[in-house]
Amino acid sequence: MSMQRLLERIKTLEAPIVVGLDPMMSFVPETIQKKAFDEYDETLEGAAEAIWEYNKGLIDAICDLVPAVKPQIAMYEQFGIPGLTTFNRTVRYARSKGLIVIDDAKRGDIGSTSAAYATAHLGKVQIGSNKIAAFDADFVTVNPYLGTDGVAPFVKVCEEEGKGIFVLVKTSNPSSGEFQDQLVDGRPLYELVGAMVEKWGESTRGDSGYSNVGAVVGATYPEMGRILREQMPHTCILVPGYGAQGGKGSDLGVFFDKDGLGAIVNSSRGIIAAWKQEKYASYGEAGYADAARAAVLDMKEDLRQAWMK
Amino acid sequence: MSMQRLLERIKTLEAPIVVGLDPMMSFVPETIQKKAFDEYDETLEGAAEAIWEYNKGLIDAICDLVPAVKPQIAMYEQFGIPGLTTFNRTVRYARSKGLIVIDDAKRGDIGSTSAAYATAHLGKVQIGSNKIAAFDADFVTVNPYLGTDGVAPFVKVCEEEGKGIFVLVKTSNPSSGEFQDQLVDGRPLYELVGAMVEKWGESTRGDSGYSNVGAVVGATYPEMGRILREQMPHTCILVPGYGAQGGKGSDLGVFFDKDGLGAIVNSSRGIIAAWKQEKYASYGEAGYADAARAAVLDMKEDLRQAWMK
Repeated sequence: MSMQRLLERIKTLEAPIVVGLDPMMSFVPETIQKKAFDEYDETLEGAAEAIWEYNKGLIDAICDLVPAVKPQIAMYEQFGIPGLTTFNRTVRYARSKGLIVIDDAKRGDIGSTSAAYATAHLGKVQIGSNKIAAFDADFVTVNPYLGTDGVAPFVKVCEEEGKGIFVLVKTSNPSSGEFQDQLVDGRPLYELVGAMVEKWGESTRGDSGYSNVGAVVGATYPEMGRILREQMPHTCILVPGYGAQGGKGSDLGVFFDKDGLGAIVNSSRGIIAAWKQEKYASYGEAGYADAARAAVLDMKEDLRQAWMK
Repeated sequence: MSMQRLLERIKTLEAPIVVGLDPMMSFVPETIQKKAFDEYDETLEGAAEAIWEYNKGLIDAICDLVPAVKPQIAMYEQFGIPGLTTFNRTVRYARSKGLIVIDDAKRGDIGSTSAAYATAHLGKVQIGSNKIAAFDADFVTVNPYLGTDGVAPFVKVCEEEGKGIFVLVKTSNPSSGEFQDQLVDGRPLYELVGAMVEKWGESTRGDSGYSNVGAVVGATYPEMGRILREQMPHTCILVPGYGAQGGKGSDLGVFFDKDGLGAIVNSSRGIIAAWKQEKYASYGEAGYADAARAAVLDMKEDLRQAWMK
């Protein structure tokens, strides 16, 4: 059960933290870029190789501190097949290091198509008499706009494989309210989506009470997080938007349950590009992975006040 | 201008038809599967090779009849990197045959991430001093749940590259109403999304009056199509759900404007798996591509009553 394991790792490590592996070329130290470009020129392959080396360093530096990483597939997709190959290697390498992997892919489609996405990220595809995993992550993020029959195939694969999903409920971006905050019978749409997430997860609840169907609620909207935490008692919340997007540790207590569980906070560039911040500049380019480790430790301290209540 | 070109091709061919290249292994003739599995075994590579051969036959058979194809990326993603390589080859091969390609990927995320998706599917990524296209399609489908700042980066790339998007407004699946039909100030959410699509497209309107920002509205909801056609006068509608999902040609007149333009109807398994239907069984397995061609010609006739009014 992926969610159960995630909660246990959070407890053991005292770190409700997921590190977003959302690489931009500008985050990758020059020396790593140069080595990759020397070998592959300034090509998709060269970029993909640079990102792979960079990710490997990050994973090695943080794998004993945090329970999970969340690679954002868009950042790899823009480098085409070589980029997606690096995504695939990153997922496998992170899992080999004991990390739980959340594919941040925000997939969602009509039933038969969602089934293919669920197979791609969490399940195994039937080829002749073989069943083969394509990406084999622990979780994938899902967009709810198509309703139950777009989400159900993901839940089915979660049941079969003991894996999990996080469904977008209230996203962290500035214009998330345009549709998500619209009032439906006097309540915002995101509350309606939240209620559905609770329902979708019913069949996959573990000993902790939490189901394998989680929700995404942005750190930038703590008031809404407080309401959703109450309304979704069996739903773990993945909280993006900490750090670079403006969310602060002291605001995030509302996302956690009374036992200090039930939420995991994502930070991407705040960790992986820490070496570019003044605060961690002393690590230098060559110390980018150590800078990431230091930033994780600082985030852990900053969050302590949120979940220890 | 992708939308302009799409409309011109629809007019020239008298075919407001896009063929959905959504392969399932069960659609691929045994002989093609056997040849691929003999070479690559029953692996991701074997499945990807079989689908590539199958797609090539389909594209060759229909490229002079229809303006566009729409590969559904989920069907490739489930076969991992080899599957996505076949997706990439399919996009390039279809374009080399003069077809307009719509990547059906339903992407959408916060701004910086949507920018990466837009680059991946429509734009060019900067690597050192090079700018390189990853998938290089003409259009991509986009999910609106995150609001304007999740869509704007796609529109920006459309402006730069003369390409286009289709935004999900009212999807064809049975449970699409769960969120999309919810009343907001007395009007369904999909109308609010439709109004935003009109607005998002404003900067990219061509001579035809249609912008490069289209909408997806399911053939299974013609009454809603009629209303949206009126409310989105500058928005081309991509209409999925014809055939296998239940939409009929006679219902689809409402999606077209008074000149018989403004809509393009998708059919996937009704065309690409025609050889498995009783109606086209005489073509046999070996004639799967000719069966697809016959099914396109039949669809063209069935749709004639819809747009010639």
